[in-house]
Amino acid sequence: MGSFDPTLRINEKRLWDTLMQSAEIGRTPAGGLQRLSLSDEDRKMRDLFVRWCEEVGCTVAMDRVGNILARFPGRENLPPVAIGSHLDTTMTGGRFDGILGVLGGLEILRTLHNRHITPRRPIDLVDWTNEEGVRFPSYMSGSLVFAGLRPVEWLHSLTDEKGNTFSDALRGIGYAGDLPPNSRTFDAYFELHIEQGPLLYEANIPVGVVIGGAFVRGVTAIFRGQNAHSGGTPMDRRKNALVAAAKFIVSVNDLGLEFAPIGRTTSNWIKVIPNKGGTIPEYSEVMVDMRHQNSDQTDRMYNQALALIVRCAKEAGVEWQIGEEWKFGENIRFDPECIASIRNFAKRLGIPTMDIYSQAGHDAYSISCVAPAAMIFCPCVDGISHNEAEKIIQEQTWPAVNVLLHAVLARADR
Amino acid sequence: MGSFDPTLRINEKRLWDTLMQSAEIGRTPAGGLQRLSLSDEDRKMRDLFVRWCEEVGCTVAMDRVGNILARFPGRENLPPVAIGSHLDTTMTGGRFDGILGVLGGLEILRTLHNRHITPRRPIDLVDWTNEEGVRFPSYMSGSLVFAGLRPVEWLHSLTDEKGNTFSDALRGIGYAGDLPPNSRTFDAYFELHIEQGPLLYEANIPVGVVIGGAFVRGVTAIFRGQNAHSGGTPMDRRKNALVAAAKFIVSVNDLGLEFAPIGRTTSNWIKVIPNKGGTIPEYSEVMVDMRHQNSDQTDRMYNQALALIVRCAKEAGVEWQIGEEWKFGENIRFDPECIASIRNFAKRLGIPTMDIYSQAGHDAYSISCVAPAAMIFCPCVDGISHNEAEKIIQEQTWPAVNVLLHAVLARADR
Repeated sequence: MGSFDPTLRINEKRLWDTLMQSAEIGRTPAGGLQRLSLSDEDRKMRDLFVRWCEEVGCTVAMDRVGNILARFPGRENLPPVAIGSHLDTTMTGGRFDGILGVLGGLEILRTLHNRHITPRRPIDLVDWTNEEGVRFPSYMSGSLVFAGLRPVEWLHSLTDEKGNTFSDALRGIGYAGDLPPNSRTFDAYFELHIEQGPLLYEANIPVGVVIGGAFVRGVTAIFRGQNAHSGGTPMDRRKNALVAAAKFIVSVNDLGLEFAPIGRTTSNWIKVIPNKGGTIPEYSEVMVDMRHQNSDQTDRMYNQALALIVRCAKEAGVEWQIGEEWKFGENIRFDPECIASIRNFAKRLGIPTMDIYSQAGHDAYSISCVAPAAMIFCPCVDGISHNEAEKIIQEQTWPAVNVLLHAVLARADR
Repeated sequence: MGSFDPTLRINEKRLWDTLMQSAEIGRTPAGGLQRLSLSDEDRKMRDLFVRWCEEVGCTVAMDRVGNILARFPGRENLPPVAIGSHLDTTMTGGRFDGILGVLGGLEILRTLHNRHITPRRPIDLVDWTNEEGVRFPSYMSGSLVFAGLRPVEWLHSLTDEKGNTFSDALRGIGYAGDLPPNSRTFDAYFELHIEQGPLLYEANIPVGVVIGGAFVRGVTAIFRGQNAHSGGTPMDRRKNALVAAAKFIVSVNDLGLEFAPIGRTTSNWIKVIPNKGGTIPEYSEVMVDMRHQNSDQTDRMYNQALALIVRCAKEAGVEWQIGEEWKFGENIRFDPECIASIRNFAKRLGIPTMDIYSQAGHDAYSISCVAPAAMIFCPCVDGISHNEAEKIIQEQTWPAVNVLLHAVLARADR
């Protein structure tokens, strides 16, 4: 073992069929996916995924926050090489974001299994819980807990909009396992993901070698004004919390334009009270995030956003407050050796690559804190993601899976 | 009968106690009221109101949309003089908006009853259904239907957020009556209301003689962009429906400032899809209203707002659409004789008055289309309304109720 076999390739049709089976579980009328973490759809997908893993000889275990770790056996009892991503989606999500990483990993195991290849090290294929953070509002929370960056109890106690706790929902779908955080030490971790941006697609390059990530900072701005009648209250007497929020959203968008093309700012979410006809709103919240691959630039945007909160509140005559603040991706450092291996196998397979920064958050960010890690991107049509219309072109996708196959196998044989 | 008796006055303590009993039905922790139309709280308030009316000898009838008409008998079977307003509130409403008009009317009937005064004409005291239009989203809908300005079926088929129809909810609380719209012809209609603006309070004048209303036009702007990942999508590739909405809200507020102090514009309500972390929103709706006592000025604001929808959509790179449009209060004309009567009795009682325009919508607008109508305003503290903190000062309030008493009695004796 250990020598490069250029004829070793995934079964492309099988992978596509598998992706399309996944695409039926939580399918939306518009052809996207709504498969929120710990929902009934998530349970169905997990059940199918576990069965598929067992069919290729994996032993499947769950940790305390529902991360599924499927072990493909190796010849020696050594720390495994891991492949992972997530099977959950956003509210109106696509069929490939996260899913390609997990089911691409499954295809790799199926390929090894069919060729009767047993690597030296085991290979762990992982489905991380609640990457999207939609139902339980914290991104990448399963991998964060696995890496020991957050306590189990923090995630267990998150609640959805109906007041259900994460731990109850996890028990409800039957995926509350016993493994504690960081129960497994990975020899290395690889994650394949669609780019979720337009660069690879527009350059028609099938493999993005991820050399870093964006540093993301987020903040929720809270504005408190005064309910009043929209007819009876003259303009100069108003304390309009929605106007403050709107000024903030516009200003934050302008801020992103100043830091373009690399910097980005987004107001993702707004809440308004009472949000009813005839009444000047008394309360608003806006959640924004700011991203730049240069941490200093992210910090600059962040500080300017804080100043904008104050300015917009003042202009609208309302009180302001800083709500939740968060950040991720500070000083992400993917492993040079893993990165080199991806480049190396792409070259040997004759596949063009592009060095690329990740702008989104990924489970690999957390895992890179506890294991050598790297990411491979493949193109998605027009860079569109977090959208039911998310698409991939098959011939632009399979090269990245084949590169992953060889990089993982080489590492597992080391 | 028919001669002016300056000693005829309401019982101020009784009226206050009655208002405070009402303030317990749907009381919020902050001391306001949440008594949405056709809710269980509304039912309780209606039951109590009907009992109170019957105690002073009224015969109570309901029409097909739940308007309660309590008839205080007159000596002759002539068209009645009516007093009305509403007992429902907004989501976070106050204790007096609408309620003072109905329970002030009740106090007038109690005063007549206790003094054994039987006027020539009957007096109809009316609680109009769903004035606030919060649960079933159309303002002043009970009086609109009564006046024949909308069909019964239109109101019956409105649904609340849970999908319950108005007609089911009305039957559910037991207030679906038999009277068809416009079943009663009023000789005249008087409505007492808190100002919901600061003018009377600041001038310390207890009676506002309403000489006209604002012409209100509303529109819902719809913006359609594209869901995309907030990390992966460069600023110049975005079609951000929330940014379009925010630009529109800011511009509409600026528009109101241009037409101040008389004109006002308000974005009352926003809806965003998906409104979740990590995703550029693909869809937004903003509901705005524009008000001015000069109809031409309202039309100017309205046309400018339509142009702003187009401009903001263009700036944010999204599609736009005009949703629902509505208007009310065009060419409101209160009856000169009724207005003169209010002025006359205030003068005879030695009460200072101020001529004032109504900026809010009121049931009297609809009724003025089918009967001679007039409104009396009294001050509310700092002009604050549609707010749990809505307050009245008792000594600033009772003069208006006494003026109403005399104006109604004089008209009923005519």
